[in-house]
Amino acid sequence: MNRMARIAVLAGDGIGPEIIDQALKVLDALRSRGFTFSATRAPVGGAAIDALGHPLPAETLALARQSDAVLFGAVGAPEYDTLPPPSRPEQAILGLRRELGLFAAVKRVAIPAALTHLSPLKNGRASGVDLMVVRELNGDVYTGQPKGERPAPDGPFAGQREGFDTMRYAEGEVRRIAHVAFRMAERRSGRLCSVDKSNVLATSRLWREVVTDVGRDYPRVKLEHLYADNAVIRLISSPACFDVILTANLFGDILSDAAAILTGSIGLPASALLGDGTQGLYEAGHGTAMDLAGRDMANPVACIRAAALMLRHSLARPDLADVVDQATDAALMDGVRTPDLAGTRAAVGTRAMGDAVVARLGT
Amino acid sequence: MNRMARIAVLAGDGIGPEIIDQALKVLDALRSRGFTFSATRAPVGGAAIDALGHPLPAETLALARQSDAVLFGAVGAPEYDTLPPPSRPEQAILGLRRELGLFAAVKRVAIPAALTHLSPLKNGRASGVDLMVVRELNGDVYTGQPKGERPAPDGPFAGQREGFDTMRYAEGEVRRIAHVAFRMAERRSGRLCSVDKSNVLATSRLWREVVTDVGRDYPRVKLEHLYADNAVIRLISSPACFDVILTANLFGDILSDAAAILTGSIGLPASALLGDGTQGLYEAGHGTAMDLAGRDMANPVACIRAAALMLRHSLARPDLADVVDQATDAALMDGVRTPDLAGTRAAVGTRAMGDAVVARLGT
Ligand SMILES: CC(C)[C@H](C(=O)O)[C@@H](O)C(=O)O
Ligand SMILES: CC(C)[C@H](C(=O)O)[C@@H](O)C(=O)O
Repeated sequence: MNRMARIAVLAGDGIGPEIIDQALKVLDALRSRGFTFSATRAPVGGAAIDALGHPLPAETLALARQSDAVLFGAVGAPEYDTLPPPSRPEQAILGLRRELGLFAAVKRVAIPAALTHLSPLKNGRASGVDLMVVRELNGDVYTGQPKGERPAPDGPFAGQREGFDTMRYAEGEVRRIAHVAFRMAERRSGRLCSVDKSNVLATSRLWREVVTDVGRDYPRVKLEHLYADNAVIRLISSPACFDVILTANLFGDILSDAAAILTGSIGLPASALLGDGTQGLYEAGHGTAMDLAGRDMANPVACIRAAALMLRHSLARPDLADVVDQATDAALMDGVRTPDLAGTRAAVGTRAMGDAVVARLGT
Repeated sequence: MNRMARIAVLAGDGIGPEIIDQALKVLDALRSRGFTFSATRAPVGGAAIDALGHPLPAETLALARQSDAVLFGAVGAPEYDTLPPPSRPEQAILGLRRELGLFAAVKRVAIPAALTHLSPLKNGRASGVDLMVVRELNGDVYTGQPKGERPAPDGPFAGQREGFDTMRYAEGEVRRIAHVAFRMAERRSGRLCSVDKSNVLATSRLWREVVTDVGRDYPRVKLEHLYADNAVIRLISSPACFDVILTANLFGDILSDAAAILTGSIGLPASALLGDGTQGLYEAGHGTAMDLAGRDMANPVACIRAAALMLRHSLARPDLADVVDQATDAALMDGVRTPDLAGTRAAVGTRAMGDAVVARLGT
């Protein structure tokens, strides 16, 4: 990308704006390496409800569409929990995924040997972990129709109120996300684990069949299937066994967060949300942590790593992505820690953590 | 229960028969304390497919119905994976849950201070864990109709093959499992955490509303709601915060196993499957571990603990349940370990582990 990169910055609620500021500070520091970009802000989530009456206003969506990449903070706050579901802050991220055609969420979870002490796992179990979770992001019970409330049509509870949703995947949807995961496994160790619940779900049986079929195009990748319950057991007991994990939207929501916390904080790994082209949305992928908001206490590392993923996947600057990742690792290894990582030791604030990364960029 | 307890013994496949034998040995040793029982065996799972052509033969179901309690081993083996879903070994456990009206699975996960070294978690995180997972076992996407395969009705993949399932809960179904969990929380520390995904699922919105409503009958219980992704994060990072966890069938499948592995092995905690009356099904709740079958290597502890749960909940002998649990704890604390627990240390076999528990019954 020779022309200027256009980044849409959607900071959102809670700690969103604070962590975004640190990521932008790191990107600014890369200007001296010839990286030029524009960063245009727009409201999203609760902030957009307050300002414009909608969690994903048309102007915000238009800006996102015209950008090369979206850098996303976090959305949601308890005060909006009483709104009807279609009006809540979370609709912003669900809407962006749908409108930008982002059907793959990719999260890398690595625990460098020097940082196993941060993991909730015993050091021997945490060491050597370097896995990717590839989560389908557009289908499944998230978006399947119909869903809602109705009188129970039959059975012992007939006539009572019933909540219901439709879980579903079409063949083509499984096929395109499977290709993303197989290509990734090919570039990495050549091992792919597809997670489903095909002993119970018809949706999973189609999933398993299609993934197996796509696998025929990748003879160098060793494909394994695991049930979701067994996958979470293995993720906790021997996560270093995994390389690439491929899974559906709902299981992926749970498994990506289970994998993320193995690093010691959901404030560490970031997510790339990708579609067919090079455009992507990049986020820390944790919540708004309202209790920390405005207190210079949030961990900006995941948001800084999200910026690195953006450089790698949407802005064609993998060289700078490496620079940012290495500076971030270095800061952590030097013992710079926000409160979520510090335990009983001394901690630094959000801004100081951002400064510590900038100081190690070697620019 | 003054008359003789009638136990239906369904050992099943793989390591099932071996671990069941150890549990029966422990029950036999309680005869000297005035515990009288009959144990009648019947085939189930793959063993029943081989013998009688069906994973849950009518004779087996009839025996289970007439019993005070079912002691269940494990079912399933790779050789049956090519059968159509309704004929597979797993249908036996799904059928027993349905036919016996077992709508609640209750799993207790405790890590005694002396056994934190077995946990995959750092000792400080594992210590103090003592939680119960209450999982709804009859509804949800497991049994909701319709499910199957069809041409995708609409959207960008219209006409392609689509796998689909129906997620659903009726009000009364949520109400009865919520009461089980609230009563349990009342008897324990008075804290209940209900897990759902109400930011995405209509089924979860009804779930949350009904659980909140049932909570009004239990003013002494403090109710909290967590999204499933946040629940698994907390389960891995600070499990000692939980007391009683209440959740739906699918989330419960994943969360019970995530909780179980925190003890160090899914071969340790057991499950009680309960309905409206005192009849229950008791199981280790892990798989058939075909690689260990017939080798005197499986861990019988969960199956022995299942027998203790049976004494407590179906056979009105909580005194003997305590005796068995204490003997089991004592064996583990004395360092008696099957291979799954031993790491690089010396291990004993399945039978020797059973003997070690019997030796500590103090009978
Ligand atoms: C906010 C919520 C709808 C979302 C999800 O469940 O997908 C979140 O948990 C995530 O993983 O990005
Ligand atoms: C065997 C399978 C159908 C079952 C389930 O998913 O419920 C198992 O995983 C369990 O938890 O008992």
